[in-house]
Amino acid sequence: MRIFTVPEAPESALSIIEQRLSENLTGFLGESIVAVEKPLSSIEQDFLTHEIPQLPSFVSDYADEMMQKLVAHSVHTASPSFIGHMTSALPYFVLPLSKMMVGLNQNLVKIETSKAFTPLERQVIGMMHHLIYGQSASFYEQLMHSANHALGAFCSGGTVANISALWIARNKLLQPDGEFTGIEKQGLHRALRHYGYDDLAILVSERGHYSLGKTADLLGIGRDQIIQVPTDADNKVDVTLMRQYAQKLAAKNIKVMAIVGVAGTTETGSIDPLPELAALAQEIDCHFHVDAAWGGATLLSSKYRALLKGIELADSVTIDAHKQMYVPMGAGMVIFKDPSSASAIEHHAEYILRRGSKDLGSQTLEGSRPGMAMLVHACMKIIGRDGYEILINNSIEKARYFADHIKQQPDFELVTNPELCLLTYRYVPIAVRNAMDIARERGDTELLARFNTLLDGLTKFIQKRQRENGKSFVSRTRITPERDFKQRIVVLRVVLANPLTTREILHDIIAEQRQLAEQNIRYLPPLLELASSVATPQAC
Amino acid sequence: MRIFTVPEAPESALSIIEQRLSENLTGFLGESIVAVEKPLSSIEQDFLTHEIPQLPSFVSDYADEMMQKLVAHSVHTASPSFIGHMTSALPYFVLPLSKMMVGLNQNLVKIETSKAFTPLERQVIGMMHHLIYGQSASFYEQLMHSANHALGAFCSGGTVANISALWIARNKLLQPDGEFTGIEKQGLHRALRHYGYDDLAILVSERGHYSLGKTADLLGIGRDQIIQVPTDADNKVDVTLMRQYAQKLAAKNIKVMAIVGVAGTTETGSIDPLPELAALAQEIDCHFHVDAAWGGATLLSSKYRALLKGIELADSVTIDAHKQMYVPMGAGMVIFKDPSSASAIEHHAEYILRRGSKDLGSQTLEGSRPGMAMLVHACMKIIGRDGYEILINNSIEKARYFADHIKQQPDFELVTNPELCLLTYRYVPIAVRNAMDIARERGDTELLARFNTLLDGLTKFIQKRQRENGKSFVSRTRITPERDFKQRIVVLRVVLANPLTTREILHDIIAEQRQLAEQNIRYLPPLLELASSVATPQAC
Repeated sequence: MRIFTVPEAPESALSIIEQRLSENLTGFLGESIVAVEKPLSSIEQDFLTHEIPQLPSFVSDYADEMMQKLVAHSVHTASPSFIGHMTSALPYFVLPLSKMMVGLNQNLVKIETSKAFTPLERQVIGMMHHLIYGQSASFYEQLMHSANHALGAFCSGGTVANISALWIARNKLLQPDGEFTGIEKQGLHRALRHYGYDDLAILVSERGHYSLGKTADLLGIGRDQIIQVPTDADNKVDVTLMRQYAQKLAAKNIKVMAIVGVAGTTETGSIDPLPELAALAQEIDCHFHVDAAWGGATLLSSKYRALLKGIELADSVTIDAHKQMYVPMGAGMVIFKDPSSASAIEHHAEYILRRGSKDLGSQTLEGSRPGMAMLVHACMKIIGRDGYEILINNSIEKARYFADHIKQQPDFELVTNPELCLLTYRYVPIAVRNAMDIARERGDTELLARFNTLLDGLTKFIQKRQRENGKSFVSRTRITPERDFKQRIVVLRVVLANPLTTREILHDIIAEQRQLAEQNIRYLPPLLELASSVATPQAC
Repeated sequence: MRIFTVPEAPESALSIIEQRLSENLTGFLGESIVAVEKPLSSIEQDFLTHEIPQLPSFVSDYADEMMQKLVAHSVHTASPSFIGHMTSALPYFVLPLSKMMVGLNQNLVKIETSKAFTPLERQVIGMMHHLIYGQSASFYEQLMHSANHALGAFCSGGTVANISALWIARNKLLQPDGEFTGIEKQGLHRALRHYGYDDLAILVSERGHYSLGKTADLLGIGRDQIIQVPTDADNKVDVTLMRQYAQKLAAKNIKVMAIVGVAGTTETGSIDPLPELAALAQEIDCHFHVDAAWGGATLLSSKYRALLKGIELADSVTIDAHKQMYVPMGAGMVIFKDPSSASAIEHHAEYILRRGSKDLGSQTLEGSRPGMAMLVHACMKIIGRDGYEILINNSIEKARYFADHIKQQPDFELVTNPELCLLTYRYVPIAVRNAMDIARERGDTELLARFNTLLDGLTKFIQKRQRENGKSFVSRTRITPERDFKQRIVVLRVVLANPLTTREILHDIIAEQRQLAEQNIRYLPPLLELASSVATPQAC
């Protein structure tokens, strides 16, 4: 089979593409991805065939075709003006290294198919453990490569990390006890019966990631048992309320299985009061998990790591290296404070994962999986703490700058302040801002709601049109700010993690949004009319 | 940040490595990976530091270091003489394409960060659906790109695919009904109470993959509820027994949630009688899942696809493209017969996965995940059905050839015949074979066990020593052959999926194993002694 041995001639299409990619990734992406968005329905026209083709194709033909049909209509996630999502530019060196990783095609499920990749992955997990928990050198010497311990688990992303952490929490709570052989073997309903609980619950901020609902479903606990606790004005979970919820649950004989703290909410980048959550978890004797998928990398900044104070009290922590650690997609981790935690989900098989082996697969949700840890290793070694210090600080300070810039605009409203590098805002014409302030003073929530409904339409319009124009991208979400009496409003959301995003780009984005807003004919006129109807009677 | 923009000079270490990788992958791997195995404990010495380094490193220095510490001691999974695992050589074109995939860094969780990759992935899933279920053109026209349907889900591997399938099966069985809002929301124990079941169970062959136990644990059903049904002499599940088990479970008010058929067991590559399993599933009204992680690709061979007859009756099918479809690690899929199945695990969030969107993340276990589907797409298009026909047939026929070759050796015993391209065997000295036959005739299971225990030691020795020598690699597992009265024995296991494996390589592997066996001083002498003690009294 030629395709397994002989690469194509160096001048062929694929080689040329690859060379351009290597020489200048940013340039390649900029040139190859079309700026103006094609509607999805029209992109779909190129992916309609449902039959695997009978005849083979030339690699070059395929490469050409995909440049036009796929690459041209993919998303320029690395663009410095695409600040709406959590995917940033990549350091150039991850490209050749990822090619090496793919070529080696290791399978981390077991030593037999991964060899040195296994100690490498254990080291990556150990380094992350040290970053969070900072145990002694002898701790890592004894445990990092121990067959009977796991300082964490590598996985494809934060969702699997959260599932793994809560799976462990559930199994540890409902562990073997006397004749009861544990939930792992006997299942949830028998476990509840044995321990005499009517139900389990998980306490988390209303800003918790949607993967927690998925986890509760998967684990058999049920989505209703994710108890969402309201947040305060800063989008941090209200611990006093959470304590009250916990008491109510206890009174109903519902055992709180875990408290989940969020360190960097997806919507606003807020960090829950972790020390207070840890104290509450200890008080009610439950697992404390911190979802730091986004915010965890802040620990790499000596200047800002204090923002995550209390994370070292967590029993488990989720961190995604494919977010603020600048590793390509597919690098999630869950780190365990107690190196024997993972034994709660340990499993073995005949041909692999034998007891006492160092096979990583015996304590992970996934089975076969690639050597992505190599890219995390590379980033940690090549960028170093000093490099990450610059990157993380840069992001946070850029967000603060952008927040100030928004505040200076008379026709924009900063909705959430950046704690990390996320913030939300919206366009509100000056007259409307004034009128809404009047409504707020009066406590006229109905009037406020009328404004907010129209503003929602306008915000959606701005976001959609800007994305379609293809020059820049911000995302949108809904939140419930205190000052609007917790009305659910649509806001623009930016994530400022791309080191290539400049202040000028941020200015331009605001200017474009203003221009788009001013052109809107559906929401802007009624907004201004409503504002003038509020202002006029007052003027009388 | 220079590392985000400026690649290193073309003559630097990483560039040179990359060039070698591109020009000749097999050569690169052969030269870079050391032949003779270094003990894991000594490899670990290079991965001991638990602190993320403070200072950045030069990319070239890092690349050099990793060539020596990581690549040199990784596993040559692509080697034609490494026939012990399910990872094969890769077509050369996946390397540049994977680099492109990494560079584009799309996130398939939502359209906003994946755009054309979403229809591409839907097409890949659609093509696999068609390969299995062969529905009409209008079926795919209506459903392949429908926001409200999913023909399957892409994931990191077979384990997640199996979990997803059984998660759906559980949720469909315990769906909303009157005031009961479904297991998804209310949890397993309330669901069982509502439907009046004492427990759930999953029926599967004793050769089922270990991920099923993990699934039962995760889903809250409990590992004990994976009911392992014995297999017949051909390592296929005994359907008559399974029916009896199902009746016993029903009598105990335990609802069978799913029957899992295996199409290509990990240990022997055997295929369960799928039509009979489908009939039983219909009879007892339960979900029928087929785990074809390994065997599914056989459908690409018109000559051998009949081996999987009945797979089209399955409600869901797991297939790993990173196995016999020659895609790099991390490409699993679960395919659903009913395009509305996945609604049982559907979830939404504010900022993504909005209702009615085509975001793939609303129906998958994983959240953020890479555009691996692109590599499956490339392999299907470039290799084509004609190419896969050659590859699959080649593997099966090579395994048959090797089985014949083993049978011709007086001192080797073929333990399982290849149905696909897997087979198991062991070295048994001639005198021992004869003596064991006598023991079998006499029904002397105790004597047989003494032989088998010694042979187990010898087989393990051969396997380990051969691996350490680094020239070739076969794996080992335990199975329970009928002719040895279901005694659990250790066997050598080969997987013949690498198109570069020649007959000569197979001959050499047998020759090396014989040589290793003949040098053994711990198990061979007592084996021969025991054999002569059996033969002697008979001769008297």
